[in-house]
Amino acid sequence: MESAEYMRNLIIETPSSPGNFAKVALAIGSLEGDIGDIQTIKIGTSSTIRDVSINCRDKAHLDKIVETINHIGEGIAVHAVTDDVLQAHEGGKIHMKSRMEIRSLGDLRRVYTPGVANVCETIKKDPEQAKYFTGISNTVAIVTDGTAILGLGDIGPVAGMPVMEGKSVLFDQFAGISGVPILLDTTDPDEIVNTVKNIYPGFGGILLEDIGSPHCFEVEERLKKELPIPVMHDDQHGTAVVTLASILSACRQAGVKLADSVVGQIGLGAAGLAISRMLIEYGVKEVHGIDRDEEACVRLESHGGVIADSLEELMGTCDIVVATTGVSGLIKPEMVREGQVILALSNPNAEITPEAALEAGAAFAADGRLVNNILGFPGIFRGVLNAHAKDITYPMLIAAALAIVDSTKSGDLVPHPLDPTVHENVAEAVERVATEG
Amino acid sequence: MESAEYMRNLIIETPSSPGNFAKVALAIGSLEGDIGDIQTIKIGTSSTIRDVSINCRDKAHLDKIVETINHIGEGIAVHAVTDDVLQAHEGGKIHMKSRMEIRSLGDLRRVYTPGVANVCETIKKDPEQAKYFTGISNTVAIVTDGTAILGLGDIGPVAGMPVMEGKSVLFDQFAGISGVPILLDTTDPDEIVNTVKNIYPGFGGILLEDIGSPHCFEVEERLKKELPIPVMHDDQHGTAVVTLASILSACRQAGVKLADSVVGQIGLGAAGLAISRMLIEYGVKEVHGIDRDEEACVRLESHGGVIADSLEELMGTCDIVVATTGVSGLIKPEMVREGQVILALSNPNAEITPEAALEAGAAFAADGRLVNNILGFPGIFRGVLNAHAKDITYPMLIAAALAIVDSTKSGDLVPHPLDPTVHENVAEAVERVATEG
Repeated sequence: MESAEYMRNLIIETPSSPGNFAKVALAIGSLEGDIGDIQTIKIGTSSTIRDVSINCRDKAHLDKIVETINHIGEGIAVHAVTDDVLQAHEGGKIHMKSRMEIRSLGDLRRVYTPGVANVCETIKKDPEQAKYFTGISNTVAIVTDGTAILGLGDIGPVAGMPVMEGKSVLFDQFAGISGVPILLDTTDPDEIVNTVKNIYPGFGGILLEDIGSPHCFEVEERLKKELPIPVMHDDQHGTAVVTLASILSACRQAGVKLADSVVGQIGLGAAGLAISRMLIEYGVKEVHGIDRDEEACVRLESHGGVIADSLEELMGTCDIVVATTGVSGLIKPEMVREGQVILALSNPNAEITPEAALEAGAAFAADGRLVNNILGFPGIFRGVLNAHAKDITYPMLIAAALAIVDSTKSGDLVPHPLDPTVHENVAEAVERVATEG
Repeated sequence: MESAEYMRNLIIETPSSPGNFAKVALAIGSLEGDIGDIQTIKIGTSSTIRDVSINCRDKAHLDKIVETINHIGEGIAVHAVTDDVLQAHEGGKIHMKSRMEIRSLGDLRRVYTPGVANVCETIKKDPEQAKYFTGISNTVAIVTDGTAILGLGDIGPVAGMPVMEGKSVLFDQFAGISGVPILLDTTDPDEIVNTVKNIYPGFGGILLEDIGSPHCFEVEERLKKELPIPVMHDDQHGTAVVTLASILSACRQAGVKLADSVVGQIGLGAAGLAISRMLIEYGVKEVHGIDRDEEACVRLESHGGVIADSLEELMGTCDIVVATTGVSGLIKPEMVREGQVILALSNPNAEITPEAALEAGAAFAADGRLVNNILGFPGIFRGVLNAHAKDITYPMLIAAALAIVDSTKSGDLVPHPLDPTVHENVAEAVERVATEG
């Protein structure tokens, strides 16, 4: 047998009656495709869906197999061709699980009617009891309108769902939080605010996610003001927390004191502006910024920042430079100042590579691959939920950043994201500020 | 040691520093309370919450212990006293769990960034792929405004949350469906419809739950018309399915043919009206109804029913009588006609007890204890989700009722709710109609 090099998985639907899958297997075999693992994804009354792993010679060979299967007819169809990555997302990554099993009518009477009526009445009499007898205070809504999904832009909330499920996976694994994706069928700020306000009672907190700029500012500000539970836009403040931690680590390594430095922020979108605000709140005396968008510049000034005249001027003035423009290669080596700290965070291609920046004289340089929001939001929400805090404040976020720095091994910029102690440390720091504050 | 007869659990919060729980134990011991199991519910940075089981002599003894613990001060407090039932609900009954564990950076890159971007783009290109690579088509929103929780009435959505979590538990255990409670902070029909429409993209179906009458009619009708996914108000149609199944079983036992019978519905609230409509859809030629509410009577007539002049007239005319009034003892034994089938469904006290009805000459009589919605909604939603149906229709609901009847053991009125085959049979029947229809 020849060596197979091209392995893919096919999602194949067949009628549930016997003999149909044999037709598929025959078609694959007749074309010398090699069937590997077969997993049943769904058994329905009328049809069954399987994930069938196939080794083939190359893409053309695979395409031929798919075409042949689709020509069998009789309700047999290939719905998707998946690889390793797609396979990890099959059927969705999360499920609302019962925390108990109902094994007897006694269980049923305790968990459901008639027993549940007592629990309802207990909460009706004293709403605080909902903290103990429901999961509300351990549940966070992950809310998106799909307008700024990762670097992909306005692809809509359904196409953004894999990201929201990913956040829920991280909430569960790193903070024991029940994260519920809410996909909004509106991008109007009034509608978003109104909808979230209408469904807030089931949640202990709201994580806004991948909502585009500038409407994300209005949505977050209004929800923070109008809701009695913590609200955070991760792309702004989660990113800012992890960036502040990275800057503090970089300063430590470069022997620079952040509070005494002049910091330049290139790009004042949702993330860039939030980083600037975080730095000002941290106590940095001078934060300079630049952006082509006039409105963004006005926002920075309203928060106490200074607008630079040009990119060259900013690069020439600032001890520390953070870039979040999405423009690859924007910072030329000749702009770099001797001894500068440069974090060029745009993914997948930075404004200047760390190698080029260091060669041009930077004391420290890094790109965005290490600055991962995972380090922030799970612990931040664990902390505020533990404290039953009504808001997420700058002192809490700065405490989170310091906890990330304290959890960073000497020589590293940030901790390993799978190290559970980071998330515990962030949660503890946030809870402490929330409780004392 | 004296025999302890009064066992309760205390939810006690203490500061997390050492020695604090000892003060609690000392206080309980000094009053001769006997400490049993101790479970830690939450360990926070500043405080820890435990569930402490205590044997005491009586309620007065327990109250004394609680009072003494609350007098220790220093942040020590008893937050709740629980029994068996409350304990089953501690911390909530559900949790959004990850279906995978992230064990390496490789896992993280597949499940989250950068791998997830491929999945998002796959769905962006072909929205149908969301069926395979997200959990949307296996997730149902359990939506309530808290206006008609069980028999408790308008107690608000948060006090109703234990019921919604209970539905989610049943969805998970009996149908493998991810059920997400949505608690609405509004009771205005326009706002409810608008809010559900704004969040529908994350769900494969909508279960409306414990929404009061008459606004439940408008909410359900509009959502069914305006959303491209199945919508069902369980208190109407879930109840009607199980009631139709019970009536069919009762008819079988009493040797009566339902389609040829005259059926009387006493009480035309959300459930009563839905039962009447279901009977008419099933093919019952004459459905008579009665209610004090004029609007409810008009609704029945608009669906093809006949309004009876009086309770006595209805009881004298009808072969089969269903009562859902909530008025205990409404049906007097002298109203019962020889050979009548009587289902008096109000909980916890029926309009007439089965014993009294049988003694008065009924051929068959039952109360509401056995007519449990659990038999319907999990399988109904499993069926429509499997079929990717866009709506739940009467033929599907009637197929569900017939599947329940077919799953009922001879001599029983309904199947045992924990028998998994009922739910499988209902799902299959509904999927078949949905696929063929």
